[in-house]
Amino acid sequence: MTEALGTRSITSALLVIGDEILSGRTKDKNIGHIAERLTEVGADLREVRVVSDVEEDIVDALNALRHRYTYVFTTGGIGPTHDDITADAVAKAFGVSIDVDPRARAMLLEFIAEKDMNEARLRMARIPAGADLIVNPVSKAPGFRIGNVIVMAGVPRIMQAMLEAVLPTLDTGPKMLSETVLANAREGDIAAPLRAIAERFPGVSIGSYPFLSDTGPNTNLVVRSRDPALLLEARDAVAAMVAGFQRAG
Amino acid sequence: MTEALGTRSITSALLVIGDEILSGRTKDKNIGHIAERLTEVGADLREVRVVSDVEEDIVDALNALRHRYTYVFTTGGIGPTHDDITADAVAKAFGVSIDVDPRARAMLLEFIAEKDMNEARLRMARIPAGADLIVNPVSKAPGFRIGNVIVMAGVPRIMQAMLEAVLPTLDTGPKMLSETVLANAREGDIAAPLRAIAERFPGVSIGSYPFLSDTGPNTNLVVRSRDPALLLEARDAVAAMVAGFQRAG
Repeated sequence: MTEALGTRSITSALLVIGDEILSGRTKDKNIGHIAERLTEVGADLREVRVVSDVEEDIVDALNALRHRYTYVFTTGGIGPTHDDITADAVAKAFGVSIDVDPRARAMLLEFIAEKDMNEARLRMARIPAGADLIVNPVSKAPGFRIGNVIVMAGVPRIMQAMLEAVLPTLDTGPKMLSETVLANAREGDIAAPLRAIAERFPGVSIGSYPFLSDTGPNTNLVVRSRDPALLLEARDAVAAMVAGFQRAG
Repeated sequence: MTEALGTRSITSALLVIGDEILSGRTKDKNIGHIAERLTEVGADLREVRVVSDVEEDIVDALNALRHRYTYVFTTGGIGPTHDDITADAVAKAFGVSIDVDPRARAMLLEFIAEKDMNEARLRMARIPAGADLIVNPVSKAPGFRIGNVIVMAGVPRIMQAMLEAVLPTLDTGPKMLSETVLANAREGDIAAPLRAIAERFPGVSIGSYPFLSDTGPNTNLVVRSRDPALLLEARDAVAAMVAGFQRAG
């Protein structure tokens, strides 16, 4: 998948933290949403990892990802209970200290009465030194950003609000655009002409996605490029190939 | 999360291969299903990675995962089109040759008429040397297993059939059992007594999962262990703590 334009591309990775996803008890709803939004703004998601609530695993994954991609997003593990260890793991990965942050504590007190504040809830105000806070309009306990790492809640509604707060602050590149052509054919019937088109348009990514419809196997052909003119040219080539196949069949 | 029993634990990782998941165009439906089934049979999922259709990325992820976990499952990238490069990447990771496998070709011919067989479809019979085939009752093109790596289709219905064919052949450990207690409380209110219980039961994993219900914030407390007696003891401790909190409230 060569890049169509020579501009610096902005890349992202996502680290999903939580035993509940790995046990299958909770079905992740965040990967698809984050993937879609990052594609829309032009900070393409290039890798996802899901790890358990084990500090060493979180630290290792964070350090692998943050040196490789422009941004790393994390979801999960920033609540008040003993299994919420994301903030501490992030501090460890960056080699910085972590303590209750007065700004975060003030945010919590917008939502939690002073009499209900306790040591557990104060854990949600523990923020690595040097991090910027990310507001949480739903339940106030903030996310944070340190370096290129953006730490968000795991609850989808809260995560989505944090993501929208962060996206406008990011560097983004030219957006990846896409066009879909329904093949009305089985993958294997059009694979050869499709490969020829893919070879003719090295700056365009052409994907073939088979699915089982009620009437049998079918295929979506997805053409992707950051260059709008090239995208349409490749899309037209794919559509013409598909139409030709239909006439021949 | 210390292990309750001293037996060798069987671990799994999942590698999801496909640009369409990372672009958000396709929402993954396989991670949750595979997580649930592996937990049920006792071959716990410990890590998931999603990578794009780039050979180097697939090879690197495979080599990182296959040396670390008992089993590695992959989904996606085994169709007939130019973007289906999983089988070649697996062969490369293992340093073995890859060619059309007569057994796989014969399977394809159960589904595809000889006159419709073409070079693209034959790609689906390309299998790394030394691999065992995994039957595909839906559309015949097989998955395969080489070493500890199990390569499956990305289409959920086909993937699920392949997974069920493979699971009975795996080594499995004592199953991770779980019990859920609804807290009827906010996480921050019960975090301190919950931590105390977690410390009392080091061989039990106790997770706290907040969610937003129609009536406000609530929390599921999930107790997990491979030891049934220990599980029930910890579950009872959590339930008693929650009941005590309700009376106090």
